[in-house]
Amino acid sequence: MTEILSHNEALKAAQRIMQRCDVLATISETPGELTRVYLSEQHFQANRQVAQWMTQAGMHVWQDEVGNICGRYEALEANAPAVMLGSHLDSVRNAGRYDGPLGVVTAIEAVDHLNQQGIRLHQAIEVVGFADEEGTRFGITLLGSKGLTGEWPADWLEKTDAQGISVREALINQGLVPEHISRAARDPASISAYLELHIEQGPCLEAADLPLAAVTAINGAHRLHCQFQGLAGHAGTVPMQQRQDALAAAAHWMVAIEQLTTEAGEGLVATVGQINCLPSAVNVIPGEVHLSLDIRGPDDLPLTRLLNQLLVRAEFIAESRGLCFTAQEFYQIPATPCDSRLRQACTQAIQQVQGSAPQLSSGAGHDAIAIASRWPVGMIFVRCEKGISHHPAESVTVEDVAAGLNALTRAVILAVEPHFERQADAYTHTV
Amino acid sequence: MTEILSHNEALKAAQRIMQRCDVLATISETPGELTRVYLSEQHFQANRQVAQWMTQAGMHVWQDEVGNICGRYEALEANAPAVMLGSHLDSVRNAGRYDGPLGVVTAIEAVDHLNQQGIRLHQAIEVVGFADEEGTRFGITLLGSKGLTGEWPADWLEKTDAQGISVREALINQGLVPEHISRAARDPASISAYLELHIEQGPCLEAADLPLAAVTAINGAHRLHCQFQGLAGHAGTVPMQQRQDALAAAAHWMVAIEQLTTEAGEGLVATVGQINCLPSAVNVIPGEVHLSLDIRGPDDLPLTRLLNQLLVRAEFIAESRGLCFTAQEFYQIPATPCDSRLRQACTQAIQQVQGSAPQLSSGAGHDAIAIASRWPVGMIFVRCEKGISHHPAESVTVEDVAAGLNALTRAVILAVEPHFERQADAYTHTV
Repeated sequence: MTEILSHNEALKAAQRIMQRCDVLATISETPGELTRVYLSEQHFQANRQVAQWMTQAGMHVWQDEVGNICGRYEALEANAPAVMLGSHLDSVRNAGRYDGPLGVVTAIEAVDHLNQQGIRLHQAIEVVGFADEEGTRFGITLLGSKGLTGEWPADWLEKTDAQGISVREALINQGLVPEHISRAARDPASISAYLELHIEQGPCLEAADLPLAAVTAINGAHRLHCQFQGLAGHAGTVPMQQRQDALAAAAHWMVAIEQLTTEAGEGLVATVGQINCLPSAVNVIPGEVHLSLDIRGPDDLPLTRLLNQLLVRAEFIAESRGLCFTAQEFYQIPATPCDSRLRQACTQAIQQVQGSAPQLSSGAGHDAIAIASRWPVGMIFVRCEKGISHHPAESVTVEDVAAGLNALTRAVILAVEPHFERQADAYTHTV
Repeated sequence: MTEILSHNEALKAAQRIMQRCDVLATISETPGELTRVYLSEQHFQANRQVAQWMTQAGMHVWQDEVGNICGRYEALEANAPAVMLGSHLDSVRNAGRYDGPLGVVTAIEAVDHLNQQGIRLHQAIEVVGFADEEGTRFGITLLGSKGLTGEWPADWLEKTDAQGISVREALINQGLVPEHISRAARDPASISAYLELHIEQGPCLEAADLPLAAVTAINGAHRLHCQFQGLAGHAGTVPMQQRQDALAAAAHWMVAIEQLTTEAGEGLVATVGQINCLPSAVNVIPGEVHLSLDIRGPDDLPLTRLLNQLLVRAEFIAESRGLCFTAQEFYQIPATPCDSRLRQACTQAIQQVQGSAPQLSSGAGHDAIAIASRWPVGMIFVRCEKGISHHPAESVTVEDVAAGLNALTRAVILAVEPHFERQADAYTHTV
């Protein structure tokens, strides 16, 4: 492919991306740490800052009715459909500075570069800084991207934050109009594709010693509350063979969870993150254990198969010990496969940048989940140190960001202009 | 052996024992449930009741300086050493009615029967209702029996209850003299042996379908706070093979604890009664797990060997997973073997009553632990329903209590008068 960004250009641009992430990190409700939630003063302060960078990159800028900040870089011809790039600008509490903003700022930089080179494509490029992906304030997630797809549930306006302020009130307080939320929905025909660059939030790229990966799917997930019911007893007087120890049964199951999930492969993961036993005394055999199960995978079929296998095993363990096992699913989301054409574009772009393109599924949720209900989605992951995310220690290198910018820019062009390489000269001279 | 108690006599006496346990169960600080703690009004109310029964059984009665209620049934000759029988009159909160009182009331009944029959032995019989075994009020245990052995630590007077009242103040409030505690200590030569009848507080006799067992030893115990330190991580983004999941490691260890302890046999038991993981979120891989280990056994050597084996295994598991394991022992008590001669007397007495005599170690602590530091101890266990204890559902049958009374009476005579059987007539006519 024609050189889109030279190594030096990319590094210089990556330095600016890092600086801009630093600038956004200072826009926080809590001094000294980063917390930026939906419909806060900081939300709109960040939007204004991002709008300024979008404008500098040659984009037409507007804030939509949900509070997303949007910019459009026109195509060769007016009214062409757009490939949309984006990520979110909100954060968890005491967050890192790259989860979300890196994708927004890198997308702006990609557009800026095309603009500097005078390159326009056959489709427009839109960049969106989504207003709420994390759900930190109101306990509901993907408010920004679901605004664009027109999938805000009717009851979301009445959801309240910790202070009892409803989404409706918060919108009004910031000058937005609750009744106009549906106007944020975009005409499906106006957008052709969605590409998101995001930090991996996991350790796989570090382990692979590579900066970038193409994302195959955003994992589906099931979350369950599980219980083993046995019989409490005196830790000194009940012989090992006569116990109905709920914690021993749970331990047996947890070992099986790890083993069966590892054996299943297919990118599946399962986690027991919470456990409590009753009566919880040093000298009493636990009669009851409550534990959570979080299980995820990129394909729904193997995911459901593994979940069933784990539940059958739990029942077998319980029965063989004279205990009772129950489980209640309280959260479920199907897997979101990335669009095969966009995944191919990301893969090819990453191969051009770093020689090989690892394929990773995303264990975390992203705006792309919501967007996928309307438009094809693709994602590029950037290595982050030790896989740490949702923590101030979140860290990326300028070299990896340069690679990410390069790959994202290439992926956009590949997605929009499959014949760009042959016609590169034509494009660079059309403006 | 000469018939000491006919079946009918024993049943009738057992009914009285049950009634007296019912009477004591009404002496409680909480209406509708049984809670009777050291140096409470109820403590002394129970003492007065027990004193009355002791007097009726032909005993000389006194309350010692610690608050134990004591009765003495004289021997054939004055100033003879005494075989001491007893158990405790205090309770845990919301207790059952047999843990402790059954041993005191049955001992009184045994003396009463000898008294009714005009039988005096070559040794006196003393019965003690110990003032505090459970440690419910002040968090220190065996206050009654350690008063008799003269082993009250100097700092016990300053221990306080939940209301901030010290042992010293509570003694004074009840008309006792803190400075006189040491006077409760008995001359070692004045007591030849200690025998205690107690409910099993475990399920073994029920499983064996027998009312009584001879106790081999009171188990030694070690209690430890243990930790696995791993690395917290995103439940969705960290592949199974790259995790340092502290809870998965703990589960692996708990399975090993159960397996190794069961394989070790020798009456050993090990229990994880408490477990907590951090950060304790459904979607976060646990980075840290805190769990307790309670391990007990009737012989110190196999107990220590097993404990070491478990700790080595924990370290191996931690190391093989890239985690760190640490453990701190916070409680340790050596095993208290029963005296072989008294164990033989109990065994023989039980065989005479029920044909066979199971040998059980005691998983729970008893006054006999303290007494064993000065005098030989022996114990008889009585079956209790489902092994339930420290709970209002604590239950024994009148038939089992009759068997227990019969065996205790026989054990006393066997302990004091090895040739009683041949000389039975002589004894019954000496008074």
